[in-house]
Amino acid sequence: MQKNSPVILDLKFDRAQIATALKGAFAGREVIDLALPANRSRDLSGAGYAVVWRPSADLFARASNLEVVFSGGAGVDHVMTLPALPDVPVVRFVDPTLTNRMSEWVVMQCLLHLRQFKAYEAQNRKRLWHELAQPEAAEVTVGIMGTGVLGQDAARKLKVMGFDVIGWSRRKKQIEGVETFDAAGLDAFLARTDILVGLLPLTPDTTGIFNASLFKKLRRKGALGGPVFVNAGRGGSQVEADVLAALDGGILAGASLDVFETEPLPLQSPLWTHEKVFVTPHAAAASDVGALFSHVERQMDRIENGEPLEHVVDRAAGY
Amino acid sequence: MQKNSPVILDLKFDRAQIATALKGAFAGREVIDLALPANRSRDLSGAGYAVVWRPSADLFARASNLEVVFSGGAGVDHVMTLPALPDVPVVRFVDPTLTNRMSEWVVMQCLLHLRQFKAYEAQNRKRLWHELAQPEAAEVTVGIMGTGVLGQDAARKLKVMGFDVIGWSRRKKQIEGVETFDAAGLDAFLARTDILVGLLPLTPDTTGIFNASLFKKLRRKGALGGPVFVNAGRGGSQVEADVLAALDGGILAGASLDVFETEPLPLQSPLWTHEKVFVTPHAAAASDVGALFSHVERQMDRIENGEPLEHVVDRAAGY
Ligand SMILES: NC(=O)c1ccc[n+]([C@@H]2O[C@H](COP(=O)([O-])OP(=O)(O)OC[C@H]3O[C@@H](n4cnc5c(N)ncnc54)[C@H](OP(=O)(O)O)[C@@H]3O)[C@@H](O)[C@H]2O)c1
Ligand SMILES: NC(=O)c1ccc[n+]([C@@H]2O[C@H](COP(=O)([O-])OP(=O)(O)OC[C@H]3O[C@@H](n4cnc5c(N)ncnc54)[C@H](OP(=O)(O)O)[C@@H]3O)[C@@H](O)[C@H]2O)c1
Repeated sequence: MQKNSPVILDLKFDRAQIATALKGAFAGREVIDLALPANRSRDLSGAGYAVVWRPSADLFARASNLEVVFSGGAGVDHVMTLPALPDVPVVRFVDPTLTNRMSEWVVMQCLLHLRQFKAYEAQNRKRLWHELAQPEAAEVTVGIMGTGVLGQDAARKLKVMGFDVIGWSRRKKQIEGVETFDAAGLDAFLARTDILVGLLPLTPDTTGIFNASLFKKLRRKGALGGPVFVNAGRGGSQVEADVLAALDGGILAGASLDVFETEPLPLQSPLWTHEKVFVTPHAAAASDVGALFSHVERQMDRIENGEPLEHVVDRAAGY
Repeated sequence: MQKNSPVILDLKFDRAQIATALKGAFAGREVIDLALPANRSRDLSGAGYAVVWRPSADLFARASNLEVVFSGGAGVDHVMTLPALPDVPVVRFVDPTLTNRMSEWVVMQCLLHLRQFKAYEAQNRKRLWHELAQPEAAEVTVGIMGTGVLGQDAARKLKVMGFDVIGWSRRKKQIEGVETFDAAGLDAFLARTDILVGLLPLTPDTTGIFNASLFKKLRRKGALGGPVFVNAGRGGSQVEADVLAALDGGILAGASLDVFETEPLPLQSPLWTHEKVFVTPHAAAASDVGALFSHVERQMDRIENGEPLEHVVDRAAGY
């Protein structure tokens, strides 16, 4: 890789955060920010790198000599599905600030369900002072689907909070204190799970995986009185009609959703104000733009010094 | 201590939980449950032990030969303030189930404030999809007042979740990764605190300690945009009029209260539905009655075998 090759930014992020993060970033390297009007019809063929989040459809046609594509987030489905994606390494964003934020969100959601937040909120509206029978975390099994970077950190922190934790992934993992299952062990995993946490990438294999037939396999006799579904992976993995039917039919006792089939969540979705659902607007783990640029610079240094890139996506697996 | 001395129960707890826990408990020992009508006017002078939670005012006059009083909870203010309390050891309830439950509650409350739960809830009611700027836990300092059994466990778990944690107690403590302050360091401690967590016992020294003058000393320029007050110690430590005034005057950005000056919280209290306050009905860490009876049996075995009791209250300090 040629040293100091220009870098294209095509990031549908908050502009102020990008502006702040750009101060001092990419020193000695030209930055072509496609959000600036001046760059709209500019020749991009000289750029070797692109950092992208939901890039424009014509980006790869215009930037015809890219040697690495950096995803602005941990997920790469927004890139992998683009038809003209060149056959070059796609590097995803892995960073402790993102991982820690995701675990804050996951642990909070599990605690909200454990500690019967909605039931207490309803009592408070009636000014009713009444202590509910309260299982402790150790009596509840959190089953994490997707024990990658994010799933493993969440597992460790949920364990510290006292939850029983089990994990499921394509290839079987060794995680201390966590019983793990591989793809073939899905039904056994689900039968043990009280709170299902989705931290899967969106791929053809995981599209629509959280559906009516899966929800029915979750443990029905757990300490929470019914299984709970938590998803912060990708909305394309869940069938929202099935989530709603399972909630209304008593198959699911509750849900926490940060991601949705269509984002922004459509105005008419009943999820917005469902009495059993916690909703956040794809905000579980924002990419810190400063941390993203540091990560990209580290990887550029590696490749320009002849070292292998880290966090390269497996094109066949799709994540 | 005479072996197998009878044990009095005067526990204002859920009857079903007591009945379940009594199965198999206190084998070979007479149990005098004062909730049973048959025991109402019974001679209690033969009993050496009493396990109490908010005991009747005449208990100690009737049970005139007690040698140990066991508190049904971690707090002992409900016992220490009784005029006829005999000069015998008062043992408080210390148990991992209680400690873990308290930390679930404390960590959940800190995350609710960190992750702007109320702001997202308000947006959801308007079906507004909008990601808020989000500090991470490491940018927020949780200051724990009372670093005893509960405070230390909460500190450790808050650290794992990424928060910066500092602690304050009467006597200076060594807690790994936590900067600690003693009684004299209160102002310095408060000036560093973004989320104040109260886990203090109620004593003459801690009565009304959470008041307007203390709230004003909390850090004003933290990442949450204003300090937050969380209390799960005792309601007598907080001045609720000051909490409300501080919330309404912008001195406090939010609060989480499990304990109140008067419990049940009076119907007319604005705290029930305050838009900046999370309320639970003294439910942060219920005493598991089974675990309580096991703990009491362990301590009875100790004293009957000539070993010293554990968790004995310091009568001078009041906790
Ligand atoms: N909501 C948000 O704010 C937010 C923020 C960041 C990321 N995310 C989402 O979180 C996802 C996970 O991130 P990560 O960094 O943890 O990714 P990662 O390290 O690649 O982990 C992905 C995990 O999913 C498993 N997996 C993938 N396909 C599978 C399949 N078909 N069957 C079973 N397991 C499968 C993988 O199994 P193996 O271990 O066998 O490979 C791995 O354990 C991202 O892809 C992104 O979509 C959401
Ligand atoms: N809401 C609930 O459901 C619930 C449940 C259980 C307990 N509680 C409350 O939580 C309290 C704490 O329980 P615990 O088991 O952690 O008690 P603990 O082990 O006795 O710890 C008490 C802590 O408070 C400190 N302290 C006491 N008086 C002080 C003063 N005047 N100035 C500064 N620090 C002072 C002590 O300092 P030293 O370390 O120097 O002694 C100690 O660190 C209980 O007393 C009870 O009121 C509430």
